[in-house]
Amino acid sequence: MHYITEPMAIEERSMEIIAPYLAELNLTPEEVKVFSRIIHAAGDPEYSKIIEIHKDAIRAGCAALESGCDIFCDVEMVRTGINKRRLADNGGTVHCLIGDEKVASTAKELGITRSMVAMRTFGERLHGSIVAIGNAPTALFEVLNLMKETTIRPALIIGVPVGFVGASESKDFLAETSPVPYITVRGNKGGSPIAAAVTNALLYMHRR
Amino acid sequence: MHYITEPMAIEERSMEIIAPYLAELNLTPEEVKVFSRIIHAAGDPEYSKIIEIHKDAIRAGCAALESGCDIFCDVEMVRTGINKRRLADNGGTVHCLIGDEKVASTAKELGITRSMVAMRTFGERLHGSIVAIGNAPTALFEVLNLMKETTIRPALIIGVPVGFVGASESKDFLAETSPVPYITVRGNKGGSPIAAAVTNALLYMHRR
Repeated sequence: MHYITEPMAIEERSMEIIAPYLAELNLTPEEVKVFSRIIHAAGDPEYSKIIEIHKDAIRAGCAALESGCDIFCDVEMVRTGINKRRLADNGGTVHCLIGDEKVASTAKELGITRSMVAMRTFGERLHGSIVAIGNAPTALFEVLNLMKETTIRPALIIGVPVGFVGASESKDFLAETSPVPYITVRGNKGGSPIAAAVTNALLYMHRR
Repeated sequence: MHYITEPMAIEERSMEIIAPYLAELNLTPEEVKVFSRIIHAAGDPEYSKIIEIHKDAIRAGCAALESGCDIFCDVEMVRTGINKRRLADNGGTVHCLIGDEKVASTAKELGITRSMVAMRTFGERLHGSIVAIGNAPTALFEVLNLMKETTIRPALIIGVPVGFVGASESKDFLAETSPVPYITVRGNKGGSPIAAAVTNALLYMHRR
């Protein structure tokens, strides 16, 4: 059976196949890159209908990356998917506390999710950073609550938690109340590869 | 805003929401668990129409896990998503060579993907194991070719690569030619969370 085995050819062909799905959406070239990487990561053109990019999101995300900001994520799969070498070129690091023992014991004690405790533990370090949430609606709610209660302001929130319990609501809440730019996908879909795809699209974009 | 913050309640409620999508599919209780975890991981009930479980797959996968088999995967995100603690209870380990330097240099030299080289490097170690492919169609093709050319036989192939170039074809090829049991999703969808979800469903199932 014949199939393409040359990595760059695979990526180029993939972007060609995705392009027609975006043709009538009136996207900027930068938005096309974000949309394409998401659809590529999910194998699902339906994402073109649910992606929502705040008007200042790409500019804010790229500026933060250029200044060497860190990235804070909810689960290890998001950290794994992010191109950490490219991020390190600017001095940035990816942080995740979901596996932290102290976070786990606090969460158990309080009867809440570990990702909520993790976000609260990051606290002021989130200021000026990029927050990338690919799994837990509770993590996204927590960051939004934190912004209500404090002056902590991430540069950008990539909020794409997945699932049937709270995910859709958390993303609506993000779009309706966030005082900072955001990138999201509405509804139940989302996930770690989507969070990583958006982050990497920005990482590949910002290089002058 | 009110939302559920208690981890077990979130999971239970999620499975309740997914159940109606599976009601008319005539699934065994074990198949329901695999279907549910996939749909949960993707936030996408459409998966119920494309999941395909070979009749011996769940039994073969659980038996292999009980005997302490290793798991070989194509990308780090799959390894990250698998419950390695649960796997280790039986003596199993997850292996991934996508970041291996020798694999990278060989792939560059040959002009093929790193995941192809990685699968070939695993070679005989794949015999009796579980292969979990969540990203690269070329990795799945390579394992199928390896089975044609040799007597290497994994116990189970979880083949759910994602994307528009080769993914669908690789999964058709799996279903049509695999001499060993498999679990797949047809079409372009798939991905690391899907591969991890299937693996974890088996890990949580086999415990007697």
